Amino acid sequence: MNTLIKDAYVILPDGGTQKADIAIEGNLIKAVGEIPHEFKGERIIDGKDKLAAPGFVNGHTHASMTLLRSYADDMALMDWLQNRIWPVEDRMTEEDLYWGAMLAAVEMIKSGTTAFADMYGPYMDAVAKVVMESGLRAVLSRGIVALAPGASEKLEDGVRLYREYHGAANGRITVMLAPHSLYTCPPEFLEKVAGKAKELGAEIHIHMSETEVEVKDCIKNYGKRPFAHVESTGLFENGTLAAHCVWLEEEDMEIIRKHDIRVVHNPGSNLKLASGVAPVQRLLKEGICVGLGTDGASSNNNLDMLEEVRLAALLSKVETMDPKALPAFQALQMGTEFSARAVGLKDVGRLEAGCKADIVLYSMQGPEWHPRHNLVSLLAYSANSGAVDTVLVDGQVLMEKKRLCTIDEEKVCFEAERSVKRLTEG
Amino acid sequence: MNTLIKDAYVILPDGGTQKADIAIEGNLIKAVGEIPHEFKGERIIDGKDKLAAPGFVNGHTHASMTLLRSYADDMALMDWLQNRIWPVEDRMTEEDLYWGAMLAAVEMIKSGTTAFADMYGPYMDAVAKVVMESGLRAVLSRGIVALAPGASEKLEDGVRLYREYHGAANGRITVMLAPHSLYTCPPEFLEKVAGKAKELGAEIHIHMSETEVEVKDCIKNYGKRPFAHVESTGLFENGTLAAHCVWLEEEDMEIIRKHDIRVVHNPGSNLKLASGVAPVQRLLKEGICVGLGTDGASSNNNLDMLEEVRLAALLSKVETMDPKALPAFQALQMGTEFSARAVGLKDVGRLEAGCKADIVLYSMQGPEWHPRHNLVSLLAYSANSGAVDTVLVDGQVLMEKKRLCTIDEEKVCFEAERSVKRLTEG
Repeated sequence: MNTLIKDAYVILPDGGTQKADIAIEGNLIKAVGEIPHEFKGERIIDGKDKLAAPGFVNGHTHASMTLLRSYADDMALMDWLQNRIWPVEDRMTEEDLYWGAMLAAVEMIKSGTTAFADMYGPYMDAVAKVVMESGLRAVLSRGIVALAPGASEKLEDGVRLYREYHGAANGRITVMLAPHSLYTCPPEFLEKVAGKAKELGAEIHIHMSETEVEVKDCIKNYGKRPFAHVESTGLFENGTLAAHCVWLEEEDMEIIRKHDIRVVHNPGSNLKLASGVAPVQRLLKEGICVGLGTDGASSNNNLDMLEEVRLAALLSKVETMDPKALPAFQALQMGTEFSARAVGLKDVGRLEAGCKADIVLYSMQGPEWHPRHNLVSLLAYSANSGAVDTVLVDGQVLMEKKRLCTIDEEKVCFEAERSVKRLTEG
Repeated sequence: MNTLIKDAYVILPDGGTQKADIAIEGNLIKAVGEIPHEFKGERIIDGKDKLAAPGFVNGHTHASMTLLRSYADDMALMDWLQNRIWPVEDRMTEEDLYWGAMLAAVEMIKSGTTAFADMYGPYMDAVAKVVMESGLRAVLSRGIVALAPGASEKLEDGVRLYREYHGAANGRITVMLAPHSLYTCPPEFLEKVAGKAKELGAEIHIHMSETEVEVKDCIKNYGKRPFAHVESTGLFENGTLAAHCVWLEEEDMEIIRKHDIRVVHNPGSNLKLASGVAPVQRLLKEGICVGLGTDGASSNNNLDMLEEVRLAALLSKVETMDPKALPAFQALQMGTEFSARAVGLKDVGRLEAGCKADIVLYSMQGPEWHPRHNLVSLLAYSANSGAVDTVLVDGQVLMEKKRLCTIDEEKVCFEAERSVKRLTEG
């Protein structure tokens, strides 16, 4: 179906804004601004007093972990994992993963996220089902903790996921292989994953250098810093999304540059777990692609990408003691265009002809949207995700005037609570 | 009028939550939980599926500066002030200050703030008018930059403000004296203010140790660190609200303790202007009262206290590299109870019998409010201020079911834009 968004203020790929129409043909943006005479919008969306922006791409999350939101906060990392998170995760059924990911889908759509890179398991078919039903775009991966039993089976499951779903749902689903991290996967296993990735042409999604302990242990155990160690397994040779990357030195950055590794910065989670602050300005100055992610809702505690955009900008300024660092538009790009590139999505994250029609309309109704000196600044620094009004992915309307079109929100909240009750009282 | 809030989940002063009713008699909370038999609620507010919390107290802001929101961002401090902010401020009329403060009032009520400490000028009567009309609670002060012409007149104006408004509007307005800072007020002037404060029994609202440059210049010019320097003028002897306090050493903290100075932390502004991160954990461990503020909307860029609560918690964790630092409830306390104490408000910031009925009801409707393992964590780490549903100050309903009761929001946004047009195009 062809769609015409009329009279919106559009954030253009160069950071400017313009009052313009957007023509959508099938799943693509056909034109922004001058609409061809022959274009007929079968559906018209009123963009008046709305700001049109590319949908956010959540570059690193664990969607089903929304079930653990507010379950365990303000705790030391290992106490949190061993005594709270892992025992519940062990009990999760395929149905639980489904409702967890559904709750995440509701939240993502309502907060303006149109695509997400997910690493979880075991039942990733449940997450794929959520992507298909919700209409979202996703880069799925079966996370593998190889130190736990069944590493080979998990890798086989990841390979199966790739074969079954890579390119599915009109290309809305792509798949990566996901060895969880170097501290949960021994080097021989990473080599095995690298081999499989090469065989399939699959890219890698992995946690890298999240905590200082991880770096120290890596040096102690393998005599190398994390990036050099993982590089030696061949894992970086097929395209890599590296989440976190908090603790980096010059030699890490060289390896990142050399293999064109895309970094996903998770400021909210890195602060909440006291992991540290990633050197985003240095990475960007080196020409490295840096996207943004929320991480799971058990360590964030939401999937709100606008919060991450703001946090990224604020942290960059204080990290460099330069208020000019990471200005509003560049921070927004990190959450959209750069994140899309980081997770391997082409033609996503910009509002221009030829790109995927993944679009968010923000209602500029509240006092936080006045005065209107600069719309990009208002979005990045003042508004909150409650302003999200209408969301399209691949040209399909997933939310219109704050009402979800593909998901029964009330049912999802009810079922998620039911899953949680079973998991925590069982 | 007596009001009964029925069936809400109430955040209690000890951090627990309880499903309970709240009885309000006049401007005070009469009971939480067990409501006396004889109590008759003339107005009933349905609290079902809502979280009742004390309203936020914005401990340091410049309300009328909302007119400059998004006007100048991502700039170096002095370039920003000299070339963007001050030229516009010079042109502001009493009417502009009124509409700027009105826009701030709309935003504050809609984001759950029930009281604010304001420092601005010259026309503070306009801000007092906004407080009276909106029903908000405020601690007003006429900010004095003594290095600019007319310092004595400004101090006289501040004294007049105190005499006219301290205790006005049923006690909803109190007034402090506000020498802007040590770098805009010479020591002899601070002494003069100290004398006036003593004479009136007025407290002081001042910016302290916001930037590293301020501290260095103070040592260079006066041979002392900021707190020692200002202490020597006698300014701290009548009760002090010190905003920012980013650059502190042990000797500063000793002076803060000695004079029972209350600190207001402004994390959003301190990050955005790259001022630094205040040592909140150290202050709290010393038993110092630390509240929260947004600063003005030209350096934040909103007046959203829930954002400041979250930022404060996240920054404390990474600053100390301890995920247990500043847990959810303590961060909320900073924005409510501690802020109230910081700005000199008694019986504000807690939901218990005898306290002022300054109450916010959050609608727990969205996906970010599920699952409900811990309501305090959901508010502090997951929800956004779009959840604010109903707001009471001094027992009066200022917003009900997301509709403002005392302010015409549309008119305010229109008039604020008109002021801005005149100010920036003139």
